[in-house]
Amino acid sequence: MLTSYLLIFHLVGDQASKIEAPLNPNTINPGVANANYAVRGKLAELAAKIRKELESGSLNYPFKTTIQANLGNPQGCGQRPITFFRQVLCLAEYPEILDAPGDLLKECFMPDATKKAKWLLQHMGSLGAYSSNSGVEQIRESVSTFISSRDRYPSCPNDIFLTCGAFEGMLTALTLISGGSQRNERTGVLLPVPFYPVYLALLSTLALNPIPYYLNEEQGWAMPSGKEFASIIRQSKSRGITPRCVIIINPNNPTGAVYDQPHLESVIELAAEERLLLLADEVYQENVFPPSEFKSCKFVLRSLQATHAMDEKYSTLQLISLHSVSKGMVGEGGQRGGYFEAAGFSPFCKQQIQKLVTYTLQPTTVGQVLIECMVNPPQPGQASYPQYKQEYDSIFQRLKQKAEALYDAFKRMPGIVCQAPRGAIYEFPQVQLPPAAVAEAMSFGESPDTWYCMEMLKATGICVVPGSGFGMSNGTIDGKIWFRITFLGEGEEWIAQLENYQSDFMARFRN
Amino acid sequence: MLTSYLLIFHLVGDQASKIEAPLNPNTINPGVANANYAVRGKLAELAAKIRKELESGSLNYPFKTTIQANLGNPQGCGQRPITFFRQVLCLAEYPEILDAPGDLLKECFMPDATKKAKWLLQHMGSLGAYSSNSGVEQIRESVSTFISSRDRYPSCPNDIFLTCGAFEGMLTALTLISGGSQRNERTGVLLPVPFYPVYLALLSTLALNPIPYYLNEEQGWAMPSGKEFASIIRQSKSRGITPRCVIIINPNNPTGAVYDQPHLESVIELAAEERLLLLADEVYQENVFPPSEFKSCKFVLRSLQATHAMDEKYSTLQLISLHSVSKGMVGEGGQRGGYFEAAGFSPFCKQQIQKLVTYTLQPTTVGQVLIECMVNPPQPGQASYPQYKQEYDSIFQRLKQKAEALYDAFKRMPGIVCQAPRGAIYEFPQVQLPPAAVAEAMSFGESPDTWYCMEMLKATGICVVPGSGFGMSNGTIDGKIWFRITFLGEGEEWIAQLENYQSDFMARFRN
Repeated sequence: MLTSYLLIFHLVGDQASKIEAPLNPNTINPGVANANYAVRGKLAELAAKIRKELESGSLNYPFKTTIQANLGNPQGCGQRPITFFRQVLCLAEYPEILDAPGDLLKECFMPDATKKAKWLLQHMGSLGAYSSNSGVEQIRESVSTFISSRDRYPSCPNDIFLTCGAFEGMLTALTLISGGSQRNERTGVLLPVPFYPVYLALLSTLALNPIPYYLNEEQGWAMPSGKEFASIIRQSKSRGITPRCVIIINPNNPTGAVYDQPHLESVIELAAEERLLLLADEVYQENVFPPSEFKSCKFVLRSLQATHAMDEKYSTLQLISLHSVSKGMVGEGGQRGGYFEAAGFSPFCKQQIQKLVTYTLQPTTVGQVLIECMVNPPQPGQASYPQYKQEYDSIFQRLKQKAEALYDAFKRMPGIVCQAPRGAIYEFPQVQLPPAAVAEAMSFGESPDTWYCMEMLKATGICVVPGSGFGMSNGTIDGKIWFRITFLGEGEEWIAQLENYQSDFMARFRN
Repeated sequence: MLTSYLLIFHLVGDQASKIEAPLNPNTINPGVANANYAVRGKLAELAAKIRKELESGSLNYPFKTTIQANLGNPQGCGQRPITFFRQVLCLAEYPEILDAPGDLLKECFMPDATKKAKWLLQHMGSLGAYSSNSGVEQIRESVSTFISSRDRYPSCPNDIFLTCGAFEGMLTALTLISGGSQRNERTGVLLPVPFYPVYLALLSTLALNPIPYYLNEEQGWAMPSGKEFASIIRQSKSRGITPRCVIIINPNNPTGAVYDQPHLESVIELAAEERLLLLADEVYQENVFPPSEFKSCKFVLRSLQATHAMDEKYSTLQLISLHSVSKGMVGEGGQRGGYFEAAGFSPFCKQQIQKLVTYTLQPTTVGQVLIECMVNPPQPGQASYPQYKQEYDSIFQRLKQKAEALYDAFKRMPGIVCQAPRGAIYEFPQVQLPPAAVAEAMSFGESPDTWYCMEMLKATGICVVPGSGFGMSNGTIDGKIWFRITFLGEGEEWIAQLENYQSDFMARFRN
């Protein structure tokens, strides 16, 4: 049996094979084949290789650990989970502890964590049981209460859909507007550039056409003006593309911008004019540094609708907004909890969303528990509150400090311009590469931005993502490049390393 | 603000609105609008309503609880989680217990559960951190070891992709073959009828064309012969549909059939002849009642390849097979753990799958922990083994007993024919409705199968799914209907109730 098995492998490996495999370059979904996704590309592979070498004792590098500044992975970078959340999860996973003999329960768990776990078990049954496809009713109620009190406009529990992370909300929204080719339409989606690469890949997979709208770097990665938006729309229509949706990422990934009310109003006015579905990705809403303030798209939409109460252009607008437990002070990305709110849909559309969700979503029970804890955390007077408050604030403060320290360092670095960090967990500096550096990159057959990031990784252990992954130019033409870096890394030593690296780099290529 | 807000609502509700909302019946994805999904339809809604009434003390029904025999939701029907699995999860969620003062750890946890949790934390870090998109390397290794030892053919960890439940594997496989319209192809997928409805809905959403292949009820829901398959293919091609994939559900949902090697060989031969991607849904592989035996599609494929070692038709075949922690004795559906194995793909296709997974999958860490526990459970000699064995066996025995008791009852019931249950967690009986029953259903404007199931629900509290949801006829023409029923319900009293109901029903409509 083994012999013939090896023989098969030999045959499979044979490039001269005349019979095509079922899935091959000609039959694979072109939307998948053409999709581009770079966040976990070449750089991440090299970083993984270096990490393995370091772990097995290699002394080949001038650093002891790598910094995964390429991923928005808070707990992967040492952010500690909120204790209350984990106590609740622990008890919900193994309720036998609730009946543990003696004082075990009291010694290890806060009474309000015990109470929350019991409440959840009462409404969810075992965490192993499926919940309703839109999520547990009581948790959807908690989410709508959270949104109502955040925005001071009502939110309805029936508009809330619990998901496995924010991704499923994106996929649901974009699935709803795809399929245009079935009525001979080339459907377009307005996408900010620089973009979060998952969106571009998803648009390709769903045969939707991206309509880029460029953020204005000099103005802190501002949104286009109404006039600029109008021109973008005109151009896309002249290419035969019908815009149907606009994606807003606020706080913004990768730039760290936070949009104020006038900015959001101009996008919503565009949506009103052009009949666009609003897709608001607001997963970084807790990661906002004062004096910047988070205004939800829902709040701005409702405010505009109130101002233009008699104008159907506004009243008929529809919004899908996303949130998750992956970022913020929760940072539980691996556990996959999220929700989307679908506001303003007709009963017909609502029914279609409900149906789609019924055969595509099954939010994990653990993710739902975390959503409940996030939107309904310990309150003053409850046993867990002091610890919760201390943990939350200290995570926030540390992120703020690191964001500022990194920004201050960028300001000092030669050849680098960076916008001030307002929110999210990233900075997106611009680097002006000296011509000699561009030439060296090209001599290795690499694009200048990827090469620059590889050099940085090899010299400092810091792994970042080249700007071309977010739709920015790669530096070939004018040596202007960008990269995205998270400031999640533990400590601040790596910031100093980065600063030294950039000084050395610029010195090395000074003409 | 409140006044104008109410005004908006008034406007939104106004049917005479002249401005169309962005998402409306004309712009929504026709694949979503046309999708049909019935498992959680009218019946489930009525059952939920009755359940609420019962909970608030209603005495309007001749039963005290409803039986959710419509869903394959083991723990939702009282199946207990495996203790070892939950101990591991509990410790991994809240590792502080590992260092708890006093005796909590020793009193509440088995030493091998502690060891497994530590091993997982070592390789995963915090459960809140993202893992690699295809899942934690060490767990993928465990899965491939499990598959290799199950099939006695090698499995490669790089072919294993961990997922949130089996659904993501289906979605990945079908996404890979969709997009055919971009090369003017109407791509078809062979789908067994009766089918698992999620597949049909997903095909519609992805603009793929179902090519039904009917299972032969009299022969225990057998697969078609090679000749029948050839005729099905011929017909679909004559309709301009190019078959690219065949779905095999084994053990079968909804029929409870388990396919033997010759059956699977005939499908694989078809796939070889027609260049079809094999998509094997094997989530019920542990739910098999002896003397029936589970043979994986991978095993049969490799055996055929070994027999036809020089034949490229076989050696180039590709298989995506699915498994999950949702069914079997694990039954942790709410926690979303799954995997797929993608075997036989070229480096190019492998790269595309890897890329697709990188922007669409992020398997939950909890699901991955459960996968590890499922494929690598306690072994003889380990502390948890006796309890694990006892729990596993008793779940298995109880399911077997209930399957047999239900089947025996069906054999005694007038007007019902049912195939013997071989595996999975369902039976799919056929009911011959008397003409008077069909007439009564029609007089209520209901399809006979839905009406029959509603009557059953109201009389017994047992909620099942009408056969039309699985692609069977609804009884309008000849009064022949089907329904799917799980035998997960606690106890066996409900089986007696069902038997009484059917006797009364037949008596009521006897001419």
